[in-house]
Amino acid sequence: MYDDYEFLKVEPGADRVLRITMNRPEKLNASGEVGHGEQGRIWREFDDDPDMNVALITGAGRAFSAGGDIDAGNGPAGVDTRDGRALVRNMIACRKPIVSAINGVAVGGGLAIALLADISIASERAILMDGHIKLGLVAGDHAALVWPLAIGMARSKYHLLLCDRIDGKEAAEIGLVGKCVPHEELMPTANDIAVRLARGPQFAIQATKAALNDWYLHNIAIFEHSLYMEAHSMTLPDADVGIAAVRSKSEPEFPGAVGSHRY
Amino acid sequence: MYDDYEFLKVEPGADRVLRITMNRPEKLNASGEVGHGEQGRIWREFDDDPDMNVALITGAGRAFSAGGDIDAGNGPAGVDTRDGRALVRNMIACRKPIVSAINGVAVGGGLAIALLADISIASERAILMDGHIKLGLVAGDHAALVWPLAIGMARSKYHLLLCDRIDGKEAAEIGLVGKCVPHEELMPTANDIAVRLARGPQFAIQATKAALNDWYLHNIAIFEHSLYMEAHSMTLPDADVGIAAVRSKSEPEFPGAVGSHRY
Amino acid sequence: MYDDYEFLKVEPGADRVLRITMNRPEKLNASGEVGHGEQGRIWREFDDDPDMNVALITGAGRAFSAGGDIDAGNGPAGVDTRDGRALVRNMIACRKPIVSAINGVAVGGGLAIALLADISIASERAILMDGHIKLGLVAGDHAALVWPLAIGMARSKYHLLLCDRIDGKEAAEIGLVGKCVPHEELMPTANDIAVRLARGPQFAIQATKAALNDWYLHNIAIFEHSLYMEAHSMTLPDADVGIAAVRSKSEPEFPGAVGSHRY
Amino acid sequence: MYDDYEFLKVEPGADRVLRITMNRPEKLNASGEVGHGEQGRIWREFDDDPDMNVALITGAGRAFSAGGDIDAGNGPAGVDTRDGRALVRNMIACRKPIVSAINGVAVGGGLAIALLADISIASERAILMDGHIKLGLVAGDHAALVWPLAIGMARSKYHLLLCDRIDGKEAAEIGLVGKCVPHEELMPTANDIAVRLARGPQFAIQATKAALNDWYLHNIAIFEHSLYMEAHSMTLPDADVGIAAVRSKSEPEFPGAVGSHRY
Amino acid sequence: MYDDYEFLKVEPGADRVLRITMNRPEKLNASGEVGHGEQGRIWREFDDDPDMNVALITGAGRAFSAGGDIDAGNGPAGVDTRDGRALVRNMIACRKPIVSAINGVAVGGGLAIALLADISIASERAILMDGHIKLGLVAGDHAALVWPLAIGMARSKYHLLLCDRIDGKEAAEIGLVGKCVPHEELMPTANDIAVRLARGPQFAIQATKAALNDWYLHNIAIFEHSLYMEAHSMTLPDADVGIAAVRSKSEPEFPGAVGSHRY
Amino acid sequence: MYDDYEFLKVEPGADRVLRITMNRPEKLNASGEVGHGEQGRIWREFDDDPDMNVALITGAGRAFSAGGDIDAGNGPAGVDTRDGRALVRNMIACRKPIVSAINGVAVGGGLAIALLADISIASERAILMDGHIKLGLVAGDHAALVWPLAIGMARSKYHLLLCDRIDGKEAAEIGLVGKCVPHEELMPTANDIAVRLARGPQFAIQATKAALNDWYLHNIAIFEHSLYMEAHSMTLPDADVGIAAVRSKSEPEFPGAVGSHRY
Repeated sequence: MYDDYEFLKVEPGADRVLRITMNRPEKLNASGEVGHGEQGRIWREFDDDPDMNVALITGAGRAFSAGGDIDAGNGPAGVDTRDGRALVRNMIACRKPIVSAINGVAVGGGLAIALLADISIASERAILMDGHIKLGLVAGDHAALVWPLAIGMARSKYHLLLCDRIDGKEAAEIGLVGKCVPHEELMPTANDIAVRLARGPQFAIQATKAALNDWYLHNIAIFEHSLYMEAHSMTLPDADVGIAAVRSKSEPEFPGAVGSHRY
Repeated sequence: MYDDYEFLKVEPGADRVLRITMNRPEKLNASGEVGHGEQGRIWREFDDDPDMNVALITGAGRAFSAGGDIDAGNGPAGVDTRDGRALVRNMIACRKPIVSAINGVAVGGGLAIALLADISIASERAILMDGHIKLGLVAGDHAALVWPLAIGMARSKYHLLLCDRIDGKEAAEIGLVGKCVPHEELMPTANDIAVRLARGPQFAIQATKAALNDWYLHNIAIFEHSLYMEAHSMTLPDADVGIAAVRSKSEPEFPGAVGSHRY
Repeated sequence: MYDDYEFLKVEPGADRVLRITMNRPEKLNASGEVGHGEQGRIWREFDDDPDMNVALITGAGRAFSAGGDIDAGNGPAGVDTRDGRALVRNMIACRKPIVSAINGVAVGGGLAIALLADISIASERAILMDGHIKLGLVAGDHAALVWPLAIGMARSKYHLLLCDRIDGKEAAEIGLVGKCVPHEELMPTANDIAVRLARGPQFAIQATKAALNDWYLHNIAIFEHSLYMEAHSMTLPDADVGIAAVRSKSEPEFPGAVGSHRY
Repeated sequence: MYDDYEFLKVEPGADRVLRITMNRPEKLNASGEVGHGEQGRIWREFDDDPDMNVALITGAGRAFSAGGDIDAGNGPAGVDTRDGRALVRNMIACRKPIVSAINGVAVGGGLAIALLADISIASERAILMDGHIKLGLVAGDHAALVWPLAIGMARSKYHLLLCDRIDGKEAAEIGLVGKCVPHEELMPTANDIAVRLARGPQFAIQATKAALNDWYLHNIAIFEHSLYMEAHSMTLPDADVGIAAVRSKSEPEFPGAVGSHRY
Repeated sequence: MYDDYEFLKVEPGADRVLRITMNRPEKLNASGEVGHGEQGRIWREFDDDPDMNVALITGAGRAFSAGGDIDAGNGPAGVDTRDGRALVRNMIACRKPIVSAINGVAVGGGLAIALLADISIASERAILMDGHIKLGLVAGDHAALVWPLAIGMARSKYHLLLCDRIDGKEAAEIGLVGKCVPHEELMPTANDIAVRLARGPQFAIQATKAALNDWYLHNIAIFEHSLYMEAHSMTLPDADVGIAAVRSKSEPEFPGAVGSHRY
Repeated sequence: MYDDYEFLKVEPGADRVLRITMNRPEKLNASGEVGHGEQGRIWREFDDDPDMNVALITGAGRAFSAGGDIDAGNGPAGVDTRDGRALVRNMIACRKPIVSAINGVAVGGGLAIALLADISIASERAILMDGHIKLGLVAGDHAALVWPLAIGMARSKYHLLLCDRIDGKEAAEIGLVGKCVPHEELMPTANDIAVRLARGPQFAIQATKAALNDWYLHNIAIFEHSLYMEAHSMTLPDADVGIAAVRSKSEPEFPGAVGSHRY
């Protein structure tokens, strides 16, 4: 099992914890097409593995994951959308608990993994940012479904529309993650939690997760709505301008700021 | 456009920000029948205006809005209910982002505008209070829909049933508004956000708002339930007593405290 | 009325406040079969009582309620499940406001009462813990319905899966309860609120509660899902091990940690 | 038990079937204030009765129930609304199965009982009509919740807005009731079903009903929305005109046909 | 009012019925960019018109509407999507009742209007077909929201996936429309209903519609999900092939039949 | 692929149709533990197969599937419940269309497959019956989720509580299946539809299915509620009696008919 991963380092433990590392540190663990696909399908393989009880995911180096690869993209729009959908759907459908150890920057699809984990532990060095609007894109992968039920609507709109950075400490204070710890305690804490869960009563744990996730499923079309609007936004001129501006670290002049009635 | 407003001062900006001021400072911007109607219909006109991207609403003088006019009312119950419904429905249906700068007291319908805005910025001098129960009325205009998804159920019931005042700082801490700033920074901050949004990628911004607002629409009958119970409560004796007590600043003796089984 | 209670002390007040005390202090007000049944049916009797407007519930001695009776249980699984369902359904369906004064430990079914109350006031000595997972059981009585809408999903999963204790102060900070006060102020504060509500406009108060509770009813099957998964978990081996470990204060070795695929 | 009913004849059977007859045949079993209250509270008493498994309700004489008493009304608006709410809420919350034998005209609140029953059997002589719009009132007691999930939206709007009569045969063909039988077979058929259910596995039967009723609870605010709009419509001039026209069997001229924008 | 329509003929009647005719009979009332825009915005103007109570829409000539213009399209994808969204959202949000007289072929956006009307009357010559799949497109404008609640899931999937034609008689039998009448009775019947509604109690009628439409709003993201998937499908190769095949009346060979895993 | 099936015969076609046959004709294709597991997992393997577009499932011999194996059961309760959950969840989550050809008796889990298929075609010889109540069990596998949205609530309760048989013709008339055909046309018709879908635009087909299935996901906890109540009912005495009675073809005397208040 797990023999078909390149972006992800996947390590099944004797303690029934599956340790997963996004492993492209030179790119801040940005995914690209291959990595994005792996981010979606790993959860089904984990779910089917009779020997693993808990997954623990983190990023190699100083980032958790910078999201899509700003240079290479996540593949053509169809593939990107399909894989983003798989990521969200499969993390929610996964019966077993997932722990994220957010060790640094978590953006876009990386942030989706960080926050769709059942237990999210952030380092004080963690930086969380949805970032879609900056790129001229709709916040389409997890936020519309996950944020209002974590930090409330007022904060969700504030942060998603303005794309301010949220550090680990603030993320814990507003309830976006379960806990924030000093950086050096991140991996021990997350590991401890994963091991503890792995020793626990698995049906009770999985079932408690399942009941809580009903809240997501009862509103799943909100995610889908946002996802396919994001796909739509990739075909509009603002996306080109936004992506170029992020690449060049310049200020974008969105054509869609004039004549928004055209869309 | 915008030539038919009396209570609202409406100023379209070259920066694509529509600046709206509730402008009856001698009455703490309490609405009355005319103003309440304007509070409901402005959002559709704004939404249809091809030149405006963002609305920024605040109150003239030291209040945001004291809600309905305690002396004159908001018109007959039918009109009041219709206009309150339009206010809530139209702010939610408006595709474009709305920013509220809560400069002082925000009560009743005024509070509904403050909190249905997509980005709510409160001054440290802001005072938020639903206030319906004090008047012997059901909290009927926005709270049952908006508060649980902003600050959670426990806090919503606590504040809505007890009508304690929430100042701007606490409102930000519990997530009822996006941010609280010192009073002198309120308008610059809110203006800055509005201008920033107006320069952004409009489809991406509007679409992100739309996906988040699905949460409201998926539960819209909760608002309607509360609205028409409020209309019903206007026909019961407690309302007369409550309104009289607020006018005379005396302690009400609600007849409905005895024999609540009659309703 | 109220002449058929043994576990609960029920005192109707001339001030229209029904004071209810869980009264088995030698067992930390753990319920047992009789008490669990009473915890479910009291709310309908209260709702039907034309003379009472508000219920105020607390625990005798130093605990609020330790939940089920770890030695005697809450009766056979069928009875326990039926009564747990009645507790949650009836508290939600009750038109009148309920105030809880959480004076100490609140666990399991005791916690359900504490948090399904409309106004929850915690002492600084309060300790809130769901605790089901520790027993090898699914968190099945109220948490899956109530917690995400109170403190958000991230915190809900963190606390429900890990069963950490939450003290009164933290509970108020994260929005699990409405307010935390010093221990000696608990009963005066809760009493004050109950009396104030009892003097208020009852239709307005009941109707505001009803609209807010629509959020629960719109998702009521989530509660049911969790409840009957808990009943199912009582038939699995982890429950025996978990309950034995809590009794003996030893570390459980859950058989379900290995081979979770069997369920 | 059951000693406090006047409008309803309530007969507990040794076969565990509670036979209930709306018994005011000279008024086509129109309820009036007393009867309407009984229609709401009987279901809780039945639910609490350890000896009864199934309720079977029909009308004395040639009608099932003509609904509210067009002459005397169902009491003041507050009482009428409260009791209508109890009727719908309590029939849905009742764990035990209810069978209706629709022997003739079923209108308004009578129709609500006919269709909120779990098994509805219509005689070929049955006439079903919501009838609210004819009276100038909102279709507020059960239809908005029940009809779309029984016969679909297109038919629901067609029949509710136009108030055409539906006979028993058509009601069965479109799925508004479970079955239509020749008049002389009505009571034997309904009785047979009630007895059969009373001999069945009660938990399985009650639980199957409960799961199906989740569909209603997940949308319960739709009912509440309609109910309180009906209460609101009672305060508008169209109601007076509509009720007068039905009494005098003349054609109404609704003032609300002109200037509907006033509400 | 109504002075800005080209595709639609709009005739306000002294009987408070607004008669609307899709008027491009030489193209079977296919919309094109201009017409599609008008199909979306007419409902808001109607809703705001204090003199009109009911809208009655039909098609000129022998078709109701063939949907989008297969040759010219409905404008660029962004515009098409925006206008399709307006059509659905505005028909649902419109407080006043809309009657459709389906006189012939109703496909795509034309079918959306036919079925989102509150009262749909079909001629025996009516042909209803969603048709999206034939074009290689997702059934994105109204069907996913409207059909399951009209004719049930099994029939919805059958007809939407297979694109079989449904004639007026079958449409009435399965509940997709309210009624089917012989062709020569179509306009008299529909007109009669419109006039009857226009003379009715408008608040009661509008409010009954509003409560029923809560079912749509509670699930509105399902529509949005389908709409933006349709927009996405327009960017995929199957759409070109499907549209070309319909134009040339040949059998399409969809590239997406092979390698569907690419999307 | 597909090399691990015993109960199911799985035949991938060059026409991209995966033909699946429940193949234990001597037991009327009753599943048993092995078969029940296969009925749950086949859909994920099919979904992951890049070469198959459509699944077509039928039964060998004269039955579709008699459901669980009345003699051997479907394995211990935990396994049975887990597999029943997988069956429902995986058929709904499967992106690709599934066609069922209901050639004879379809009961219990067999009926779940028949009706969770996207296109259900019944032979005139088909017999559909939920059957749970007859066994003393809660109707727990698909019916509470699927039936109300197919045939409406009145018919769902009628058939699920009374367990009458529905033949193929009636099933089509009430909308429980998409179509009924003469027995000899069943396989040609179903095959034709499967092949036609397999040649179609796969993204458009899959996406249309996905949007429609949002209706199920938005209410998925209703299924879970019913499923775990069924598991609970397996622990109650009625189940033993009911199963024994079906085995012996005698009339059961359910102990739960007396004292239903115990559960």
